[in-house]
Amino acid sequence: MSSFTHFNEQGRAKMVDITDKEDTVRIAVAQTSVTVNKEIYEKMTNHAIEKGDVLAVAQVAGIMAAKKTADLIPMCHPLMLKGVDIQFAWHVEEEKALYQLLITVTVKTKGSTGVEMEALTAASVCALTVYDMCKALDKGMVIGPTYLVEKTGGKSGHYQREKRSAGGFINEQ
Amino acid sequence: MSSFTHFNEQGRAKMVDITDKEDTVRIAVAQTSVTVNKEIYEKMTNHAIEKGDVLAVAQVAGIMAAKKTADLIPMCHPLMLKGVDIQFAWHVEEEKALYQLLITVTVKTKGSTGVEMEALTAASVCALTVYDMCKALDKGMVIGPTYLVEKTGGKSGHYQREKRSAGGFINEQ
Amino acid sequence: MSSFTHFNEQGRAKMVDITDKEDTVRIAVAQTSVTVNKEIYEKMTNHAIEKGDVLAVAQVAGIMAAKKTADLIPMCHPLMLKGVDIQFAWHVEEEKALYQLLITVTVKTKGSTGVEMEALTAASVCALTVYDMCKALDKGMVIGPTYLVEKTGGKSGHYQREKRSAGGFINEQ
Amino acid sequence: MSSFTHFNEQGRAKMVDITDKEDTVRIAVAQTSVTVNKEIYEKMTNHAIEKGDVLAVAQVAGIMAAKKTADLIPMCHPLMLKGVDIQFAWHVEEEKALYQLLITVTVKTKGSTGVEMEALTAASVCALTVYDMCKALDKGMVIGPTYLVEKTGGKSGHYQREKRSAGGFINEQ
Amino acid sequence: MSSFTHFNEQGRAKMVDITDKEDTVRIAVAQTSVTVNKEIYEKMTNHAIEKGDVLAVAQVAGIMAAKKTADLIPMCHPLMLKGVDIQFAWHVEEEKALYQLLITVTVKTKGSTGVEMEALTAASVCALTVYDMCKALDKGMVIGPTYLVEKTGGKSGHYQREKRSAGGFINEQ
Amino acid sequence: MSSFTHFNEQGRAKMVDITDKEDTVRIAVAQTSVTVNKEIYEKMTNHAIEKGDVLAVAQVAGIMAAKKTADLIPMCHPLMLKGVDIQFAWHVEEEKALYQLLITVTVKTKGSTGVEMEALTAASVCALTVYDMCKALDKGMVIGPTYLVEKTGGKSGHYQREKRSAGGFINEQ
Repeated sequence: MSSFTHFNEQGRAKMVDITDKEDTVRIAVAQTSVTVNKEIYEKMTNHAIEKGDVLAVAQVAGIMAAKKTADLIPMCHPLMLKGVDIQFAWHVEEEKALYQLLITVTVKTKGSTGVEMEALTAASVCALTVYDMCKALDKGMVIGPTYLVEKTGGKSGHYQREKRSAGGFINEQ
Repeated sequence: MSSFTHFNEQGRAKMVDITDKEDTVRIAVAQTSVTVNKEIYEKMTNHAIEKGDVLAVAQVAGIMAAKKTADLIPMCHPLMLKGVDIQFAWHVEEEKALYQLLITVTVKTKGSTGVEMEALTAASVCALTVYDMCKALDKGMVIGPTYLVEKTGGKSGHYQREKRSAGGFINEQ
Repeated sequence: MSSFTHFNEQGRAKMVDITDKEDTVRIAVAQTSVTVNKEIYEKMTNHAIEKGDVLAVAQVAGIMAAKKTADLIPMCHPLMLKGVDIQFAWHVEEEKALYQLLITVTVKTKGSTGVEMEALTAASVCALTVYDMCKALDKGMVIGPTYLVEKTGGKSGHYQREKRSAGGFINEQ
Repeated sequence: MSSFTHFNEQGRAKMVDITDKEDTVRIAVAQTSVTVNKEIYEKMTNHAIEKGDVLAVAQVAGIMAAKKTADLIPMCHPLMLKGVDIQFAWHVEEEKALYQLLITVTVKTKGSTGVEMEALTAASVCALTVYDMCKALDKGMVIGPTYLVEKTGGKSGHYQREKRSAGGFINEQ
Repeated sequence: MSSFTHFNEQGRAKMVDITDKEDTVRIAVAQTSVTVNKEIYEKMTNHAIEKGDVLAVAQVAGIMAAKKTADLIPMCHPLMLKGVDIQFAWHVEEEKALYQLLITVTVKTKGSTGVEMEALTAASVCALTVYDMCKALDKGMVIGPTYLVEKTGGKSGHYQREKRSAGGFINEQ
Repeated sequence: MSSFTHFNEQGRAKMVDITDKEDTVRIAVAQTSVTVNKEIYEKMTNHAIEKGDVLAVAQVAGIMAAKKTADLIPMCHPLMLKGVDIQFAWHVEEEKALYQLLITVTVKTKGSTGVEMEALTAASVCALTVYDMCKALDKGMVIGPTYLVEKTGGKSGHYQREKRSAGGFINEQ
C-alpha cells in the first residue's frame, strides 16, 4: 500500500475494486472538538435547557451523516453500518479561557472495507451542527482538529493513534 | 441575538422563522486544512499525476457538499447557492516536518439567510475527501482546525475573524 | 379547481406549471398522533431520560423530512422553507387506556406554492421516528390519523379544518 | 427487550449495534388508508383516466420511499431491500359517505434487522402522494391510521396484529 | 462566452457566480429515445397492461430526476423548478424493424440560470427507467441520442436545434 | 424471463423479489459518448488546462451517480458497489468533423442482482456533466447512443453486445 490506490491506468480517480476483500467486523473511532467561548459553554451546560439541548440535535445529525458518507465522499464504497455511537465530553481550562466540547464517534460494520470515513464524517457533521446552533452567539468557534483515534478489522489491521504533536499543536485528549 | 434562537417555547429545536428577512447578497469564507506526512505531500505535489489528482476530486466533493448543507445540518434553511469556489495552498515548514494543505472555500448567495454553514460544510467534506484518498498511505492525517474567516451581508453585518490563539494552537494562515 | 391538475394532455402525471403564481407568505399546519401503550407512555414521560429523549430525535427527523418533501412526493415543487416548528402534546384517557402523543407541525414559506405537503410529511416522519424508537417495547402502536389543520396564503386562500367525523372515528383534538 | 434500546450510557440516542444479529429473510406488512370525499373517489376510479392514474404515481413514490427509510428515520439501519409490493383496495360504505383507499405494503429483505420501518414509511409516503395529487379537489382528506400488520423473521419472531380498538376507533379493514 | 466558465484562476472547477444574473422565466426542451425490439414494443403498447404501464413509472422517475439535477451534476446551480412535463411518442418503421420510443421533456423555471441540464437529466433518467423495466426481455436496447431541442430565457437568449446529422446518424424526429 | 417482471397481479409496478437469488460477483460495462464541435474538442484536449480538466469532474460525477442508481431508478434494488471505473477515449474523424468522446464505465459488485443500471446511469451522468461544463461554448452537443456492452454473473449469464446497426446508425466503437 505504498501508492495511491484510487487512480486507474489513465491517471484518473476510480472506486477501488474490493470484490476480493473479506467481510469482517470493522470498528473505527474518530474524534473532533468545538472550541467555544464562555457564554456558549455556560448556555450549553446549564440546566435551563432540559429537553431540546444542542447536543441532542448535533448527535442525531452526526448519526444521519454517517449513513450519508458514501454520498458525500466520492470514492467511498457504500456500506451497511451496524452501529453508530457518539459521546460528548467537555475539556475546560478556566485559566486559559478554554472551553472545548470533545466529540467521539464509534462506528461499526461487518463488511469488506473499513469505516474510518464514516466515523470522521459523523464527527465533522456533529461539530458543524453545534456550530450552526450556537453561531448567533459567536461566529468565532473553531471546529477540530479532527482525526482517527483507532480502527480495527480488515487486512490493514489495527491502527491506534499515538499522542503526538501534529502541525504545531498538541492534541490534549 | 444574545440567546439560542433555535429553540421553541417547549425548549425543543426548531427551524427559525426567517420569513421577514430580506434577500441580500451574502458571502461566507471558511478555511480548513489537512496536515499530512512528507510522503503524501510529495505524491500529491509531484508531476507524475497530471490529470486525476487528489485535489480535483476533493474540490468536486466540496462543491457538491455545499449544495447538501441543508440536508446535513438539521436546522439549516435550504438556500439557492449562486457560486462556490475552492482554493488550495500548501503551508510547508520542512524543519518542523509540517506539510499542511490549506483549503479556502468561498460561497455566495442572494437570499434571506447567510451561507456560513455552506462554506464550513464544503471545507469539511473537501478535507475529508483528501483524507479518504490518501489514507492508504497514512491514517495519521489531521483535519482542521476549521473556522469561518469572513462573512458579509445580512442583518448581522460583516464578520472578520481576528488572527488569534484558539484552544492552545495558533492558526498560521 | 374542479379537476385533477397533475395530468397532461396524454393523461400522464406532470409537475404543474406554477410560473405565474405569485410569491406570498404561506403557512400550513398539520397534525398526526402516535397511540402507544401505557408502558411506552410512562417511559417517554418519566424523568429518568433527561437528555436524549425520544421526542428530541423525532422532532429533528420531522424537520429534516420537511426539507425532503419534494424529493419524496413526485409532483411536489421544490420550495425554500423559511421556518418549521413541531409541538408535542399528550392526550391521555386513563379509563380508556388511551395514551396518544399529538404532533403538530407548522411550516412557513414565502413562495409560489403552498406548504401543505411539507407539514404533512414532517408530521408523518416525526411519528414514524417515535414508532421506530419505541417498537422494541410494542409493535402495536398506531400512527395517525394525519390531516391538514389549517393553511393560509396563496390563491386558494384560507383553509381551516372543521372538527368532524372521518372514516368512522372522531378526531378528538 | 423491556427498555428503550436506542440510548447510550449518556442517555443519548444511538444507532443500536446489530453486528451480532444473523442475516435472515425478514418480511413486514404495513397498512394505511386515505379517506377521500365522493368526488375524488369517483375521479380516481372512473375509466376516463387510463394511463396516468393517481395510484400509479403514488405506488412509485411508496417504493422509492422504502429505499429512503434509513435516510429519513435517524436510528434506522441501512438495509438492502430485496422486494417491495404495494396493493390498493377500496373500502366504500355509500350510506356513511365513506370512501377509503386502503394501501398495503409488503417489504422483504435478507439482513440483520427487520423491515417494519421500511413498510410503514412506504405506506405513509404512498398515502401522502395520493393526498398531494388530489388536494386541489379537497384538502379535508385523512391519512391513516397507519400500522404494522405483520412481521416475520428475526430474533423477535412473528408478529401479527390483532383486530382491535386502538385510540377510540375501530380499524374496519 | 468563448471559454470554459467553470474554472477558477487555479485551473480548477468552480460553481460559476451567477449572483448578478436576473430572475427570468426560462424554458428548456430536451429529447431522447429508447430503441427497443419488436417484442418489447408490442408488450409496451398492447392493451393488456392498463394501469401500471412502463411509461407511467418512467415518467415519474424523469420528473423526480429533474429535481435532483443539482445533486447529480457537480457544477449545476440549485434551482426552484416551476413545471416539468414529459411526453412520449413512438417512431416505428416496421420495414426497418425500428421501434423507437421518443421522450420529450419540457422544464420551466423562474430563476437566474437556465434549465437545460434539468431537461436533459430528466430525459436520461426517464429512458434509463424504461431500460430497467424491459431489460429482462432484451438487454440490447439503445438509449439516445439525447440532446437539447430548444431553450428560451436568459442572457444567452433563444436556442433552437437545427435538424442535422451529428456523429454519423440522422435524428429523425 | 419472457414477460415483464416488474408488475404485480394488480398490473402495477413492484420491486421484484430477489430474496432467493444468490450473491455472486457481477460486472457490467456500459458505453456512451458526447459528440462535440471542434472548438470544444480542442479546448478539452489541449494542455493549457492541466489540473481541473472537464473529464476529472465528469468522472467524479459518474462514479457518484453509480451509487445513486437505486435512488433514481424506481424499481432498482439497492446494491453495495464494490468497484467503479470510468475510461475515456476520443474518436475523431477530422474529414467528417466528428469529435466524439467515448465514455466506458465498468461496475462490479458481489450481490444478488446485476449492475447494468449502475453502469448505464454512471455513463449517462458522466456525459451530462461534460455537456454541462461545455455548454457555454455550444449547446448542440449530442449525448449517446448509450448501451450495455457486456455483463457477467448472475442466473441470466453472460451478455455481450454484438456490433450491429440499431435505429438507423452504426455504433463505431
